[in-house]
Amino acid sequence: MSSTNLTFPSRDAHRAWLATQAILPAGFRVGITSLSFVPVEVPKPAKMDVTLIAMDRPTPDFAGVFTRNALPGAPVVLSRQRLNEATVGAVVVNSKVSNVRAPDGVAIAERWCEAVAGALGLHGRQVLPNSTGVIGWRVPVEAMLAALPDAVASLGQRSLLDAATAIMTTDLYPKVRRALVGQGSIVGFGKGAGMIEPNLATMLVFLLTDVAIPRTELRRMLVPAVDCSFNCMSIDSDTSTSDTVLLLSSGAVPCPDPAAFERALSQVCQDLAEDMPRNGEGVHHVLRIRVSGAPNETIARGVGKSVVNSPLFKCAVCGNDANVGRLVCAIGKYVGPAAPDLDLRNLRIRMGGIPIFEAGSFHLDAKVEAALVAHLKQAELYASAPPVDGVFRPPVDYPTHERCVEVEIDLGAGNAGATVIGADLSHEYVSENADYRS
Amino acid sequence: MSSTNLTFPSRDAHRAWLATQAILPAGFRVGITSLSFVPVEVPKPAKMDVTLIAMDRPTPDFAGVFTRNALPGAPVVLSRQRLNEATVGAVVVNSKVSNVRAPDGVAIAERWCEAVAGALGLHGRQVLPNSTGVIGWRVPVEAMLAALPDAVASLGQRSLLDAATAIMTTDLYPKVRRALVGQGSIVGFGKGAGMIEPNLATMLVFLLTDVAIPRTELRRMLVPAVDCSFNCMSIDSDTSTSDTVLLLSSGAVPCPDPAAFERALSQVCQDLAEDMPRNGEGVHHVLRIRVSGAPNETIARGVGKSVVNSPLFKCAVCGNDANVGRLVCAIGKYVGPAAPDLDLRNLRIRMGGIPIFEAGSFHLDAKVEAALVAHLKQAELYASAPPVDGVFRPPVDYPTHERCVEVEIDLGAGNAGATVIGADLSHEYVSENADYRS
Repeated sequence: MSSTNLTFPSRDAHRAWLATQAILPAGFRVGITSLSFVPVEVPKPAKMDVTLIAMDRPTPDFAGVFTRNALPGAPVVLSRQRLNEATVGAVVVNSKVSNVRAPDGVAIAERWCEAVAGALGLHGRQVLPNSTGVIGWRVPVEAMLAALPDAVASLGQRSLLDAATAIMTTDLYPKVRRALVGQGSIVGFGKGAGMIEPNLATMLVFLLTDVAIPRTELRRMLVPAVDCSFNCMSIDSDTSTSDTVLLLSSGAVPCPDPAAFERALSQVCQDLAEDMPRNGEGVHHVLRIRVSGAPNETIARGVGKSVVNSPLFKCAVCGNDANVGRLVCAIGKYVGPAAPDLDLRNLRIRMGGIPIFEAGSFHLDAKVEAALVAHLKQAELYASAPPVDGVFRPPVDYPTHERCVEVEIDLGAGNAGATVIGADLSHEYVSENADYRS
Repeated sequence: MSSTNLTFPSRDAHRAWLATQAILPAGFRVGITSLSFVPVEVPKPAKMDVTLIAMDRPTPDFAGVFTRNALPGAPVVLSRQRLNEATVGAVVVNSKVSNVRAPDGVAIAERWCEAVAGALGLHGRQVLPNSTGVIGWRVPVEAMLAALPDAVASLGQRSLLDAATAIMTTDLYPKVRRALVGQGSIVGFGKGAGMIEPNLATMLVFLLTDVAIPRTELRRMLVPAVDCSFNCMSIDSDTSTSDTVLLLSSGAVPCPDPAAFERALSQVCQDLAEDMPRNGEGVHHVLRIRVSGAPNETIARGVGKSVVNSPLFKCAVCGNDANVGRLVCAIGKYVGPAAPDLDLRNLRIRMGGIPIFEAGSFHLDAKVEAALVAHLKQAELYASAPPVDGVFRPPVDYPTHERCVEVEIDLGAGNAGATVIGADLSHEYVSENADYRS
């Protein structure tokens, strides 16, 4: 799925590569500031980053896709409405508090957008708000308003690496991917490490381009690009209240070839969709499940999602334990209720290219077991070290490589397929999430 | 849901109470043996327990409900067929290997049943086979046949506590529940601690009664009893390939009141369904989600299942972290795709009896937070201790109490409801499952 197959020997090597991706397209400026506040709900000092993306001129050419969670955050409620505006001129993002179902959340988000708009010479409805962090808490709007002049003063043509860093919550590292289209580019950056099964998690993705593509075309292209990338990915099956993918074109560069733009857009989305689980909370292994031979794409994706969301298979992978019985369990638990008439007699499964299941049964022995374990170990991003205080922390804050645990499932019952990306389940995930807010 | 509200100050106190439940009904005998073998797949010595439940006389009055996993184990395939037999006379159970999709698994299970039948004067099809353990491995049928005479020789009117212990895999303690009906009783025992979201995990439940109830009535009663108990429960969302609930009546005692029998059957099933997550792998807290105000029972159960299967909410509960934002996320992630037209404006949520959400938003402050944390702490079964070797193990092998984290969700959109039982997600779960087979 990833268009690259890189290894990163060090944090510096990873950051240097990111810098080559994070080149701001023409027509945009970026501003960043941070602030301190004390949440009403848990009165301990907290820090928030505010990121501002301003366009040189408001654009009619923008698109957005949002969470299908039935209790979305205030920023999602407003941004969804603002898809109907003639033009937008800015995107604003805050970390730490997601402004989901807090008292007066929508009114507070509107007030914040009005203030941003005022500073930039826009109307409030021309600002697309985004928030990520704790659900249920109030955003500290007074502190944010006080910090706004700083953010505005910092606006400039800087690297998007700063923005990709400022929007992080539990992310270990920033995520940025770039594709060239003619004289222009599409640059996407995103955050998200937990509460991730986009059904468009708290996943925010911003795709900026200077390539001129009209709004209707942008919106038509974004749906399949998201569908085959973020919607085919899960870290922990928790579809967030705040998932957002925004795509804005400044139109500064003419489009040489809309089909090339659409391919580049899909590639950036797919690369970012693989970056998310690779940086998922506590992730040791990225899983790539290629399902083929399905009667339709829904079943192909359902099988893939069932495997990447199986806690037992995820734990086994984490331990480099080739417990492929759990893989078959996960396939069967989905197919039983969802497609009871599906004939699985021709089911064939490979892991790391090694055949493990066909003609109705497993084909396992000590040699196969050893080969499967070797495949798991080469795909491991890092090993856990028992911590002295019982709190597991990842030992690296960069992706050491782009290898995956490769699983191929041929259902033998049709011509449809899907590739689904996921992650294992580890002590580091539990440590991160058993006391995330403190 | 539990009919009792017990606390157990010690392992001995728990075992003494279990003994009061594990009284074998009239008409049954129990035999147990154990054996050693070396699996072909991972050649390290392993131990298996074999349990035999023999009836004094074959009975026409039996019922069974099985997993909906599309790749069921060989014992499920055979037992499902044998529901059509005129009578059955024995139930046989082995631990360690589940005989799921191993080469020639069905033929091997048939051979095993034939041998058991031969020793008991039955036909092979009068034996209901059950296996639990690793998926994909071959059962060591030669070693089992060699151990069979021991199992048969040990048959007698003993406590079911031995059987409930022999069928365990990762269970920490045996699970037995009893209800009296007239002069007779229903005694249920079961195993299961992981791969548990029965859709009717490797959950095996055996319900034995001496109360005379005809087959058609037994089968009619078992479906709703299972539906409101095991099918409203999840430890880790992984529906096993081997889930089985069997109900056998010896008919030794006349039934005074079929309605009383049906109530007792439901109660035993509900009590056992709560015992499973309480003894779930690494479980620190049992969750009880009471959903009301739903337009129908499917949605009520779907909301409850979504909450108990949310890894993020489960981790937060494990850490005694009142991160109720994740609770609301889990409700919304289900309702969004499953019931997009459901109006959630009247949604109200309580935890531990404390109102936290109404009229569209949270109502949280430092006092509410402290009360929620107190509720979580009183429901904790035990606290983790950081292990010196990095492998977390539960410090107790008995349930210290029967309290739950109590969540009430009123969807405000109808009159249907459901109660769903689940568990938190802990380091002990990950340790158990990252290297279960070794």
